Amino acid sequence: MRFEITREYIDELRIKIEEKNQKDALSLIVNLYPADIAEIYNELNIDEAKFLYLLLDKEKASDVLIELEEDDRERFLKVLPSDLIAKQFINEMDSDDAADIIGELPEKKQEEVLSHIEDFSLAGDIVDLLNYDENSAGGLMAKELIAVNENWSLLYSLKEMRKQAEKIDELFYVYVVNDDNILNGTLSLKRLLLAQSAKLISEIVNYKVISVKTDTSSEEVANIMKKYDLVALPVLDGIGRLVGRITIDDVIDVIKEEAEKDYQMISGISEDVEPNDSVFLLTRARLPWLLIGMIGGIFGAEAMSNYKNDLAENASLALFIPLIAAMAGNVGVQSSSIVVQGLANQTIYLGSTFKKVMKEIAVALSNGLICSSLIFIYNLIFSDSFALTLTVSISLFIVILFASTFGTFVPMALNRLKIDPAVATGPFITTVNDIIGLIIYLTIGRILFGIF
Amino acid sequence: MRFEITREYIDELRIKIEEKNQKDALSLIVNLYPADIAEIYNELNIDEAKFLYLLLDKEKASDVLIELEEDDRERFLKVLPSDLIAKQFINEMDSDDAADIIGELPEKKQEEVLSHIEDFSLAGDIVDLLNYDENSAGGLMAKELIAVNENWSLLYSLKEMRKQAEKIDELFYVYVVNDDNILNGTLSLKRLLLAQSAKLISEIVNYKVISVKTDTSSEEVANIMKKYDLVALPVLDGIGRLVGRITIDDVIDVIKEEAEKDYQMISGISEDVEPNDSVFLLTRARLPWLLIGMIGGIFGAEAMSNYKNDLAENASLALFIPLIAAMAGNVGVQSSSIVVQGLANQTIYLGSTFKKVMKEIAVALSNGLICSSLIFIYNLIFSDSFALTLTVSISLFIVILFASTFGTFVPMALNRLKIDPAVATGPFITTVNDIIGLIIYLTIGRILFGIF
Repeated sequence: MRFEITREYIDELRIKIEEKNQKDALSLIVNLYPADIAEIYNELNIDEAKFLYLLLDKEKASDVLIELEEDDRERFLKVLPSDLIAKQFINEMDSDDAADIIGELPEKKQEEVLSHIEDFSLAGDIVDLLNYDENSAGGLMAKELIAVNENWSLLYSLKEMRKQAEKIDELFYVYVVNDDNILNGTLSLKRLLLAQSAKLISEIVNYKVISVKTDTSSEEVANIMKKYDLVALPVLDGIGRLVGRITIDDVIDVIKEEAEKDYQMISGISEDVEPNDSVFLLTRARLPWLLIGMIGGIFGAEAMSNYKNDLAENASLALFIPLIAAMAGNVGVQSSSIVVQGLANQTIYLGSTFKKVMKEIAVALSNGLICSSLIFIYNLIFSDSFALTLTVSISLFIVILFASTFGTFVPMALNRLKIDPAVATGPFITTVNDIIGLIIYLTIGRILFGIF
Repeated sequence: MRFEITREYIDELRIKIEEKNQKDALSLIVNLYPADIAEIYNELNIDEAKFLYLLLDKEKASDVLIELEEDDRERFLKVLPSDLIAKQFINEMDSDDAADIIGELPEKKQEEVLSHIEDFSLAGDIVDLLNYDENSAGGLMAKELIAVNENWSLLYSLKEMRKQAEKIDELFYVYVVNDDNILNGTLSLKRLLLAQSAKLISEIVNYKVISVKTDTSSEEVANIMKKYDLVALPVLDGIGRLVGRITIDDVIDVIKEEAEKDYQMISGISEDVEPNDSVFLLTRARLPWLLIGMIGGIFGAEAMSNYKNDLAENASLALFIPLIAAMAGNVGVQSSSIVVQGLANQTIYLGSTFKKVMKEIAVALSNGLICSSLIFIYNLIFSDSFALTLTVSISLFIVILFASTFGTFVPMALNRLKIDPAVATGPFITTVNDIIGLIIYLTIGRILFGIF
């Protein structure tokens, strides 16, 4: 029932395309869902993709276009003339998808495409939507929705709803407005189904409705829909008039992007890249953090050069440099990522930063005690230098304590300063913890090798 | 319109609870959504929470229970007798929520609670659902749904749907089955609204329907719903009979958990923890990776001890150990995380592992060239040892090349072996790259210091 792309399938399709066999090529894709066809497009070159596109009916072709990866879509639209884009695709789309796609075009082409849209009210909706920030409720919403007046009878409303429903793909809620288009409530389809047809709208409306403003951030929209388990969310303008609605499928993308952004930060990648992107893009996304790491390494070398004599006299001290650095880095990443995830999930509730840091210190104390005891026992057995044994365990304990505290404190401070705390999770925290950890280690080493 | 917890609000509520002022306490929470009340519970102790609970009506109380964090719920249910749990909460729930909550109880209490459920068919549904794996479609689905027979008239169906709708919270699709309860299609509510009441179901049904089996993994369920933008997904048994449906809100949790799992792996945390968890839990979640990092560090020290004389003779060699180790780690994490994210998003399509590794090598070549040139220039200016200058740049280049290849190859290989590739992103890949990177560095150092 579901479709899976195979190498054989793609090969067969390519042969049909090469033969310019429209009938057979179409029969291979005609029963697939748009999302499946979009996946196939990733395996084809631009000419093959274009050939297939012209075989699809307008509605399916636009659905496929929406499902394509942004890069693929851009490449594809670049080779198409503006009037074809308007007539073949945009006319068939919901306003939110249409605005997203037009928003991706260069400015000159945007105007051209808009001028070729036949449905004047759709063109107006798109222009309205393009004004909103991409990362706000206004940027996520579609204008198409079903609204009824609270003073209407249910019977009249049903007639109106039938008219309005022709314009929209899916229907989850009916919005209830007053004469000024102010949102007053919702009608779930279940209520509609259960209601006796004699009643007035005002008798079955649910007046308790969660809504957002056009300028609510998309992150907050996602949090609200997730928290209250909503599949659709009405969007209001500054004075409470209903201007659009956001559906859950758009918000799932936001949720995924948020998670990916944090993941990229912690892995030291500064742009949204995929394994299929170009070598240039992949290099550019990775270089910034590598350079930061390298500059950190240079600072580390400078700091350590003060201990060059100690290292020359006691070369065994150098052997544990990687262990200390790695532990400092790992502990720092652990601590900062717990904070970042807690902030993202909003599981860090009220309560002072101080309390959180104290708890982190307690965790660090126990982890530090366990790790440094183990390395103490190891070195006691295998190392012939008691000074080294003592230096490694004591400094490991202090380094774990410091790195945890620092790793907890920095993202919390960034969050207070309204900076994305995820910045603190990647190579930055590792690098700083590395350097400070090594200074701690070598200082303790100098003292203890002086004593023993 | 929306609610935000403040310290003042909580203080006021606590005072009312302390005064045993039921009326005022209830008035503070009665207009809130269950998800908001659940958030308030996180700020209260168990006695305060219990006091509030008994003020709520049954339906709201069970909704709040569903919204609580798992730990809080467990603690709360522990102090309640089984018959109260059944009568106060479970009776009011959908089968999927009821099964989830009963599944969290100790086995003995499960049986007790089940025996106290008044609605025999709900008890049966719960027992059925408890048999499915938590991480499968069967474990996610609810039994409550609206289904009509394809041979019914629309009018008769509407009557039947009204009866069935009383049992469910939200309604998105009506499922169409044949006499054997085999799923044949769906009816969107939009179609129902647009249909003339005279027609037969078979005339307006959409026969193209995406479904899953009870044993489909929850990860695949999430991918399907995301890919095809579904808000509800029917679940079939082995022979195609309709047994339940999954709604998007349950799947959002799965999507979030998947993302969190990968995030935890890369940050070296081995259990699902939150900043509010106990010190013991937080310690336990972090210790395993720290120990692996430490064992790696010990191996590193052993490997480096072969170069102890080189380090003693040329102590400046030790200064760049942290830089080489950090770069090896960072590059490895970058490479592996791009692969892991690509696999999770299914943006790694067909095409051989070989091609991906070749591309990664190209990226590594350019990053390696840039970084090692820069460090070469730096050392040329600031270092008085040409041997060191050459050693650091050449080995940095080789280390970046190796760490990228290794970081790409390992998660791809794990994925082939059906092991979660995210295992390769955390401290594991960093540690291995650290050790191998340092051996490369010190070996090249020994050679070059021998020559110059």
